[in-house]
Amino acid sequence: MAARRLIPLLDRVLIDKVQAATKSTGGILLPESVSQKVNEGLVVAVGPGRRNKDGDLLPVAVKEGDKVLLPEYGGSQIKLGDKELYLYRDEELLGVLKD
Amino acid sequence: MAARRLIPLLDRVLIDKVQAATKSTGGILLPESVSQKVNEGLVVAVGPGRRNKDGDLLPVAVKEGDKVLLPEYGGSQIKLGDKELYLYRDEELLGVLKD
Amino acid sequence: MAARRLIPLLDRVLIDKVQAATKSTGGILLPESVSQKVNEGLVVAVGPGRRNKDGDLLPVAVKEGDKVLLPEYGGSQIKLGDKELYLYRDEELLGVLKD
Amino acid sequence: MAARRLIPLLDRVLIDKVQAATKSTGGILLPESVSQKVNEGLVVAVGPGRRNKDGDLLPVAVKEGDKVLLPEYGGSQIKLGDKELYLYRDEELLGVLKD
Amino acid sequence: MAARRLIPLLDRVLIDKVQAATKSTGGILLPESVSQKVNEGLVVAVGPGRRNKDGDLLPVAVKEGDKVLLPEYGGSQIKLGDKELYLYRDEELLGVLKD
Amino acid sequence: MAARRLIPLLDRVLIDKVQAATKSTGGILLPESVSQKVNEGLVVAVGPGRRNKDGDLLPVAVKEGDKVLLPEYGGSQIKLGDKELYLYRDEELLGVLKD
Amino acid sequence: MAARRLIPLLDRVLIDKVQAATKSTGGILLPESVSQKVNEGLVVAVGPGRRNKDGDLLPVAVKEGDKVLLPEYGGSQIKLGDKELYLYRDEELLGVLKD
Repeated sequence: MAARRLIPLLDRVLIDKVQAATKSTGGILLPESVSQKVNEGLVVAVGPGRRNKDGDLLPVAVKEGDKVLLPEYGGSQIKLGDKELYLYRDEELLGVLKD
Repeated sequence: MAARRLIPLLDRVLIDKVQAATKSTGGILLPESVSQKVNEGLVVAVGPGRRNKDGDLLPVAVKEGDKVLLPEYGGSQIKLGDKELYLYRDEELLGVLKD
Repeated sequence: MAARRLIPLLDRVLIDKVQAATKSTGGILLPESVSQKVNEGLVVAVGPGRRNKDGDLLPVAVKEGDKVLLPEYGGSQIKLGDKELYLYRDEELLGVLKD
Repeated sequence: MAARRLIPLLDRVLIDKVQAATKSTGGILLPESVSQKVNEGLVVAVGPGRRNKDGDLLPVAVKEGDKVLLPEYGGSQIKLGDKELYLYRDEELLGVLKD
Repeated sequence: MAARRLIPLLDRVLIDKVQAATKSTGGILLPESVSQKVNEGLVVAVGPGRRNKDGDLLPVAVKEGDKVLLPEYGGSQIKLGDKELYLYRDEELLGVLKD
Repeated sequence: MAARRLIPLLDRVLIDKVQAATKSTGGILLPESVSQKVNEGLVVAVGPGRRNKDGDLLPVAVKEGDKVLLPEYGGSQIKLGDKELYLYRDEELLGVLKD
Repeated sequence: MAARRLIPLLDRVLIDKVQAATKSTGGILLPESVSQKVNEGLVVAVGPGRRNKDGDLLPVAVKEGDKVLLPEYGGSQIKLGDKELYLYRDEELLGVLKD
């Protein structure tokens, strides 16, 4: 059975947060304060965008597969099947990361 | 006699909430905390949409029969006959679920 | 002498609230909590509508004779002769009821 | 000497409030609570109206001589000679009364 | 040397307030409460006006020499040489007085 | 080496405040309350202006060299080399002074 | 491996703050209060800009390499690799510095 999908509405963006490294490369458990608070995520799905005052659709600025820098606050947590994902507004996302 | 109907006004959407599973498949009563807080619902009826500043009608983004993800808060409860339904603004709905 | 009339201004709608059934069909007086809090009313008169930013008139979404679902709060009570009526903004009305 | 006149600015409307009947028809002094709180008035003068965002003038919705229903609150009291009048914004007026 | 002048910016209006009559015509000093709180003034200078959203200039509604009714609150006091004047926004002025 | 310059951004205006006369013409030190609180300044530099909703640039209303009347509050203090200057928004300036 | 890059979204600007001189030219450690609180920074990267109401892109007012004066407050701190940078909105930046 195909996994459940969510198509975000308006200018919402579905994000899969990158989990912070809790172990050092040598496998030692990092204390909370050390395991760097990672605010990054992968774009899983994007909404169609928001309408401007004339009714034209303003597309969202990121696309599926982009790695984005997330604000410290904001975003709402949702459950899709047993996966924990986050919904942000396009406007909240800080930038696209290029490694 | 045909059941009573409500035609939502403006960009309002009438939702029939999916009831959370209170019993496990084996029939055992799940404690409140376990019976997963379900924020999903079925679109029963939609309003014509909101007018933009030029007076043109901006249609609502969902349609009758869509299964939608609801925000944790918001929506106003109404009674139609003996059915308990909810009215949301189109803007509040998070996304359309595809199973 | 013709009864006094009020022509609402802008996007206001004059509503005659449906009185809640205070007696059961068998004629027994229903306690307050039981006599279902009815939020319905009949549209008595409508204003011309509100102007959009270009000055065009955006007509009100309901018409005289419509039965409408009212929000739990809002609306201002007025007296017209000895009748008690309510003025709502078009935007506040939840939907049109079809029996 | 012609009485002093005030030409309201923008979308303001000058109102002469109808004084509440403090005596019953039989001439007996009505206690405050009984003398019905009358929220009606006569339009004495109107401003040119407000400009919309394109700079066009949106005329006021009432005219001199109209009898209007006033909101319970709002309006600022002014003195013109020894007459006590009230200034409302066009937007505040509830409706036009037709006897 | 020509007296100092102030050219108000945007939609500001420079007002010389009419001083309240503190003596009765017979020359007797009126107590504060009696000396009617006068909210009138003479327009000394006007700004060019405010730009609407298209960038066009919306002229101010009053002109030099007009006698205007002032709101009870608002306006900022300024000193020009030894004269005490007041700056209001065009939007704050209530109306033009015609004696 | 040319002195450091600041080109204000958007509708900001760089102001050099006129220092209040702290000594009377006879050279006697004036107490703080007497040394008139001077809210005047010289325009040192202006930004390009703000964009209206169509994206066109709305020029700032004052120019370099103008003497302006400043509001009692507002403006942010900055240091340019060892000079103390102030940044205001064009909208905050009250008027242009003509001596 | 190329260093990690961040492409700011919308009208955000990535800034590398100039570190305040903590030592006098003679090499003596300056106490905190003395080491002048420097609010300057170098533009590292700029977003595409914000869309106006018609959907057109309004470019950001500064460009890579500009030296800018920063407001006392605002800006959010981010980590890119081991570099500490700051994200501002174009609107927050005070001016461009020309040495």
